[in-house]
Amino acid sequence: MWLRKGLFILISVCTLQTAAFSQQSQPVRVSMGKVALTFGLVEAGVPVYSVQFAGKEVVLPSRLGFRINENRSLDSNFEVVKIDTISVDESWKPVLGEVANIRNHYKQLTIHLQQKYRGGVQMNVLFRVFEDGVGFRYSFPIQPNLRFFVVSKEITEFNLTGDHKAFWIPGDFDSNEYLYTTSKLSEVDAWKFPMISPGKRDDNIPDQFSVQTPLMLKTADGLYINIHEAALLNYPAMQLHVNKSNYHLNADLVPDAVGNKAYMRAPASTPWRTIMVSDKATEVLASKMILNLNEPSKLANTSWIKPMKYMGVWWEMQVGKTSWNYTDNLDVRSPKGELKPNGRHGANTENVKRYIDFASKHGIAGLLVEGWNRGWEEWTGDWKEDNFDYVTPYPDFDLEEITSYAKAKGVQMIMHNETGGSATNYERHLDTAYRFMNAIGYNAVKTGYVGKIIPRGEHHDGQWMISHYERVAQKAAQHKVMVNMHEPVRPTGLHRTYPNFIASEAGRGNEWNAFSEGSPPEHETILPFTRLMGGPMDYTPGIFKLRNYAKDAPARQMHTTLAKQLALYITMYSPLQMAADLPENYEAHLDAFQFIKEVGVDWDDTQIVEAEPGDYLTIARNEKGTGKWFIGAITDENARLATVSLSFLKKGVKYVATIYADGEGADWKTNPEAYKIEKFIVDESSVLKLKLANGGGAAISLWPATAEDLKGLNEY
Amino acid sequence: MWLRKGLFILISVCTLQTAAFSQQSQPVRVSMGKVALTFGLVEAGVPVYSVQFAGKEVVLPSRLGFRINENRSLDSNFEVVKIDTISVDESWKPVLGEVANIRNHYKQLTIHLQQKYRGGVQMNVLFRVFEDGVGFRYSFPIQPNLRFFVVSKEITEFNLTGDHKAFWIPGDFDSNEYLYTTSKLSEVDAWKFPMISPGKRDDNIPDQFSVQTPLMLKTADGLYINIHEAALLNYPAMQLHVNKSNYHLNADLVPDAVGNKAYMRAPASTPWRTIMVSDKATEVLASKMILNLNEPSKLANTSWIKPMKYMGVWWEMQVGKTSWNYTDNLDVRSPKGELKPNGRHGANTENVKRYIDFASKHGIAGLLVEGWNRGWEEWTGDWKEDNFDYVTPYPDFDLEEITSYAKAKGVQMIMHNETGGSATNYERHLDTAYRFMNAIGYNAVKTGYVGKIIPRGEHHDGQWMISHYERVAQKAAQHKVMVNMHEPVRPTGLHRTYPNFIASEAGRGNEWNAFSEGSPPEHETILPFTRLMGGPMDYTPGIFKLRNYAKDAPARQMHTTLAKQLALYITMYSPLQMAADLPENYEAHLDAFQFIKEVGVDWDDTQIVEAEPGDYLTIARNEKGTGKWFIGAITDENARLATVSLSFLKKGVKYVATIYADGEGADWKTNPEAYKIEKFIVDESSVLKLKLANGGGAAISLWPATAEDLKGLNEY
Repeated sequence: MWLRKGLFILISVCTLQTAAFSQQSQPVRVSMGKVALTFGLVEAGVPVYSVQFAGKEVVLPSRLGFRINENRSLDSNFEVVKIDTISVDESWKPVLGEVANIRNHYKQLTIHLQQKYRGGVQMNVLFRVFEDGVGFRYSFPIQPNLRFFVVSKEITEFNLTGDHKAFWIPGDFDSNEYLYTTSKLSEVDAWKFPMISPGKRDDNIPDQFSVQTPLMLKTADGLYINIHEAALLNYPAMQLHVNKSNYHLNADLVPDAVGNKAYMRAPASTPWRTIMVSDKATEVLASKMILNLNEPSKLANTSWIKPMKYMGVWWEMQVGKTSWNYTDNLDVRSPKGELKPNGRHGANTENVKRYIDFASKHGIAGLLVEGWNRGWEEWTGDWKEDNFDYVTPYPDFDLEEITSYAKAKGVQMIMHNETGGSATNYERHLDTAYRFMNAIGYNAVKTGYVGKIIPRGEHHDGQWMISHYERVAQKAAQHKVMVNMHEPVRPTGLHRTYPNFIASEAGRGNEWNAFSEGSPPEHETILPFTRLMGGPMDYTPGIFKLRNYAKDAPARQMHTTLAKQLALYITMYSPLQMAADLPENYEAHLDAFQFIKEVGVDWDDTQIVEAEPGDYLTIARNEKGTGKWFIGAITDENARLATVSLSFLKKGVKYVATIYADGEGADWKTNPEAYKIEKFIVDESSVLKLKLANGGGAAISLWPATAEDLKGLNEY
Repeated sequence: MWLRKGLFILISVCTLQTAAFSQQSQPVRVSMGKVALTFGLVEAGVPVYSVQFAGKEVVLPSRLGFRINENRSLDSNFEVVKIDTISVDESWKPVLGEVANIRNHYKQLTIHLQQKYRGGVQMNVLFRVFEDGVGFRYSFPIQPNLRFFVVSKEITEFNLTGDHKAFWIPGDFDSNEYLYTTSKLSEVDAWKFPMISPGKRDDNIPDQFSVQTPLMLKTADGLYINIHEAALLNYPAMQLHVNKSNYHLNADLVPDAVGNKAYMRAPASTPWRTIMVSDKATEVLASKMILNLNEPSKLANTSWIKPMKYMGVWWEMQVGKTSWNYTDNLDVRSPKGELKPNGRHGANTENVKRYIDFASKHGIAGLLVEGWNRGWEEWTGDWKEDNFDYVTPYPDFDLEEITSYAKAKGVQMIMHNETGGSATNYERHLDTAYRFMNAIGYNAVKTGYVGKIIPRGEHHDGQWMISHYERVAQKAAQHKVMVNMHEPVRPTGLHRTYPNFIASEAGRGNEWNAFSEGSPPEHETILPFTRLMGGPMDYTPGIFKLRNYAKDAPARQMHTTLAKQLALYITMYSPLQMAADLPENYEAHLDAFQFIKEVGVDWDDTQIVEAEPGDYLTIARNEKGTGKWFIGAITDENARLATVSLSFLKKGVKYVATIYADGEGADWKTNPEAYKIEKFIVDESSVLKLKLANGGGAAISLWPATAEDLKGLNEY
């Protein structure tokens, strides 16, 4: 898979890029298209890089390096031993994806550094320069004076050029489910929100000026910059500390239980630090740089990995209609030792069969059932370790009957393994849990990490948990089980390496509209530029009952129109998409539900039609193998006319466009459920004008027209 | 198994025992034989207990209680709601043990306490008063205002009456392998030794005046007091902080990674705190109080649990003759990726077969092989998590051939699972590791915890690891595997509850003489009063080559005579006893090895003939089912004449006594290998006079004499 198409010869003799570079060694420069990367050593042998786009500075000279083993410096006293350059232009096919083929085109610069004194450490920095940005990682070769070491600090800086507009969430080590704030960098304040993660602020957000990645930025002169990481394995997640006075950012690694950052053994590499840059927002969304920086699939056989739509006995718990737990008090038992049911338990056989019936009738492939297994009375909030055993159903969940009923109805059951944050407990049950899934024929699992992590003192985003998520993905792969993780670290493109790690939540999903005051209409226009840069999100769209759904909060409402809920199936990429609402709410709008039934989940091609973070987004996708196209267009709180040229359609072919649009007077706040469905004949010359309501959207399916279609429908 | 032979009525109306007790509530007093326990509330509702022996104060009024959840007080504002008293006199049979029947005879006082204010916590204190001491535990019933809680401090005090002589080791959270110091309480200094456990002193021994239990004490007026705990489950180990000015001790629980002590969920109980007291040292050693305070066996079927002697490919690594690791550098590989052998690897097929041959020839049932599995190059010292997989042998350890060879030779192979402290890694491999043992027919495992614990920040003696040891014992029981743990917390009698948890090291074993300057001759006279109070110790006696055995330290020597090594099989109780030396060293003394071949490991009866901690010890044991007796007598650095009346022998029966004694001029330092073996005819009227050399001992086997014996042997 790994093609080296020949050495790239660095022709342009390096000229001093900035005054900061020392005279000691000549800086080196590599460019691809408009993107250029410069590396050099400044005084005292300090390694420094900078990034330019079309001649403009994007990242000013910024330090590289580490502190290890308490306080040993690996950020100065270096000299350049050797520089290797290669150029790669290859392509590869993702198992599931937004496009069928991905081009991986970059120039690589490997800087071999060594500290100058006796016993000095060898450290390499690998830069890959793409047309849409730069990735770099550190690597430590086998060497006599460094084998095991502990990273106590990563020095990496990203020194920006100004007080850019930033789309950020607080640098919480244990939750990425915050609302995004759009502000200047100088206005970052990680303590402005009530802390979401359980625990103490000193433990989870010690730095008031820290943000998580992907950090989306926009400069005053219209550059879009995205800073994140790729291939986060065996290393803690990187947060960014914002120096509000000079707009310098520096890496801040999530610590472990004793304050260390990472335990390494040479040979070792860090994740890639990524800086995407473009003058078009659409190109940021179209970038495949993060995927390209991940290793190819480790799974030899991936034929069992399938994209899927699914329903869940889930939203009804989120809105308070039923409960995950079977009893309200584990201390109350019948004389025979039986639990006393609370009468509100959602995962009961009859209710599950109702969902199976609906999913089967409408061709929704999968069904998730939460709260099926014992432990939901005391599963989180108390740092309890042995909260679930992952194999024991509640008395009213007839596993055998449900399994055979679903099989007869052609519905694929999906396992639910919530850990409550007790990863140690999950790990010691992994073998048994996955053998159980195989035995009962579940081919996918949703895992969850709600609560404080056990091992106690570890964080969701620290090295131990990063390795845990990988262990789970590996274990699942061994058992041919697909994984959808909730509350893990934000993704970094690992679905390339572990294609069964099909999706994650790892951000503020639609569920927040169920149990809280929710997320504003702009939320879904920011997520693709932030959370989704790293990989598919199980956002759980498709809520049709947009008001009066929350049992204890009748005034609560969704922050979108119904048509926007449909558009999210396209704008929020995932090969695993939930139809999140209740069967009865879909029954009330079967015409609109038709879009959810039909929409694809795996794609040959994707066109980012128009995009502006925080404002709007229109994406068109070509379903894998069917020739059908689907379009989603969304806006923030402001109504908008989206203009969509269909020039991507196959030339000479007439298509039926079914447009699910906001209805007359639709408005997320006052009239969210107004929608209209229209059909037209279109072709590649058509230009759609989609009126999106405040907080609205539009969803469109396009498939080749039959003779009958052509006869019965109007041209657009 | 649990007999309540009727309620004990508290007849003696309680009189005020000490001035400290408040007038608010009458103190209650219970006595058994010479031991008396008094409980009461002093001012402000503070619960207090005291212990007396034959009218003498042993524990002065001492506080009880806790701090929970940061700093909520559970040590005052109590009132007594109810007091229950029962008396129990039952007996039970241990699966393996020093005696065939154990009498459990005590009076129990259950003090139901509740805090006086609204929402006050209910807390019970259960006292059990035995003829040889007092045990007490706290329990928290189901109650409205306390479900999950975190113990931040246990208040329990043991306020002693004077500056007693103490046999103590430092209060290290991660090692119990220190030498014992004999000093006054006021001279306790946990920092006097170089720290043994890896890590920082601030983490592992933060308290300079802390000691571990069992703490053996002797008062100026000849009382022997032993403070320990029983049934340590789901709770951290208790250390004792010594207040050197007033001789008050208080419980100090081992913290977890974030500084908490214990995570509890009502109903919950703590371990028992035990105070043994007697005016005879022999009675302390004979006490079964700790076993009695443990729960009966949780295993329904124990027929597969067998006592055993075993050899090991082990001492040769300890003395530096061979290595555990197969290669000296994992980074050096052949072109095919093979490791480069170091040529010193002990666990190679040929060498293992040599041990199998010897064990088979001499009827030693088991054989342990360390260093058989991959990982020994980088297994500890670097806080590496994934150090072993527990199933992959080194290339030169032919698992299949060894398994079938051992089977053919009638030798039971013993598994070795060293964790290097990485308990998380072991837990995630437990299922696989124990299924592997079953598959290859290993029925016992030696586990090990050398190194800093992972989960990082946890300690060997903290709650997480306490529960880990229990999980391992449970998992082993599910697979019918016996467990011998090295480097766990000190035992607390759990071999009653988990009879397959057959032995532990958990103290300074014989191995220290191999790789360090060793332990002085008194060491083995202290261990039975300290480490062994909680359960069997895998001390690994039987070293015959007492000098010039350590490859890199030719001047090093053992601190016993050869005869004392034999005596240890009796004085150091374990149903699992190693014949620790190399086959060639036994070949050189096959006459003395005869004792090891013959000595029992499971007993119908045990007589503690004479004992003084730090000075001497003589024990006689009656082998289970055979009628044979074995005697071990040891002394410290001082020569001694041990007088042993054989009155315990069966009346009217003549026995052959084979006496393995120190030879002429024997002396641990100058002439350790001098021994003589003599046989005599003895009976219950005989009184043996055993001359023990400096650092010496004697071992005796006694079995019914045949007519031929009577003809050929002299009377003693």
